[in-house]
Amino acid sequence: MYIPDPISKLIDGFMRLPGIGPKTAQRLSFYVLGMEEEDVMELAKALVRAKRDLQRCEECSNITDHKRCLVCADKGRDRSVICVVQDPRDVIAMERTKEYHGLYHVLHGAISPMEGIGPDELSIPDLLKRLEDETVQELILATNPNIEGEATAMYLQRLIKPFGIKVTRIAHGLPVGGDLEYADEVTLTKAMEGRREL
Amino acid sequence: MYIPDPISKLIDGFMRLPGIGPKTAQRLSFYVLGMEEEDVMELAKALVRAKRDLQRCEECSNITDHKRCLVCADKGRDRSVICVVQDPRDVIAMERTKEYHGLYHVLHGAISPMEGIGPDELSIPDLLKRLEDETVQELILATNPNIEGEATAMYLQRLIKPFGIKVTRIAHGLPVGGDLEYADEVTLTKAMEGRREL
Repeated sequence: MYIPDPISKLIDGFMRLPGIGPKTAQRLSFYVLGMEEEDVMELAKALVRAKRDLQRCEECSNITDHKRCLVCADKGRDRSVICVVQDPRDVIAMERTKEYHGLYHVLHGAISPMEGIGPDELSIPDLLKRLEDETVQELILATNPNIEGEATAMYLQRLIKPFGIKVTRIAHGLPVGGDLEYADEVTLTKAMEGRREL
Repeated sequence: MYIPDPISKLIDGFMRLPGIGPKTAQRLSFYVLGMEEEDVMELAKALVRAKRDLQRCEECSNITDHKRCLVCADKGRDRSVICVVQDPRDVIAMERTKEYHGLYHVLHGAISPMEGIGPDELSIPDLLKRLEDETVQELILATNPNIEGEATAMYLQRLIKPFGIKVTRIAHGLPVGGDLEYADEVTLTKAMEGRREL
């Protein structure tokens, strides 16, 4: 095929990204040729920087380009609550609510015997170390509401209860804007179980 | 928002690409964090190289990383036929058929009064220069079968006929694997007009 080498290399590069097949990769590559050189250089630099400069926060394991992440470094946050999430993206989602002012702990995954991920593969030892200090009063388990997430929440609850710390789990129920008619049985059962007096 | 700077820069970078919105850009960016450093570096390098090293072939205006593109540099090609296309991607599509063995000429667009693109914005002067040499015997107009493409084909046909060169237009008709029932009227009319004796 008569495709110049720089273009076919770029197509190959884009195809390594998720959800990008050969057609999209070709479309993106030819688009890049028409972009401002400055914008292309910035994207290339951002790729290198994101890969090289990011590390885990030494406190909560969230990703950061400093020693401690922006949440841990923020003196205005409530240090008595830690919200445990699976992924750095979950922190972004939580922060978007602007309603939570405590700290986080990022596990980087969930317990999954199927994929060979046990508690030791996650940042659970770091979490236990944070609980030795007596400032933490509540641990909110915000792992995903699926099998792995529930198993992880269950495991953490059993592990941490003996510390005498309040352990809570985020609520399951109908999503706002959802439709009762289309809700699955498990969600509906959980929504009924979790009902609150008005 | 508590997104580390390298990540938000990368999200911004991805969002400059076509068809990539904030959600996809975030997904791609976090995926990059988990990729092998080598693969990320290669993608970054490919971006820079594609933008810096590619230029137009001095003969046919196709994109190339040399002075002349791979088709023009190929001594086995039939130099008596030139296929005129709008875009370097069209060359790739034509080459995929493996049925055409002549040369190309890439216009880099089509005449479009609506977008202010006249003949002078395209590589038409270069095409005329190529026709001065008497080796060219046929010019195949393979611009797109839409208003701009047809207008460009019409313009070129009128311009080049006086040179005494055979000017042809690729056939319009039903795409292979298509369905007569769903074909639009114009395509069907063209297919009828272009019928051939078996």
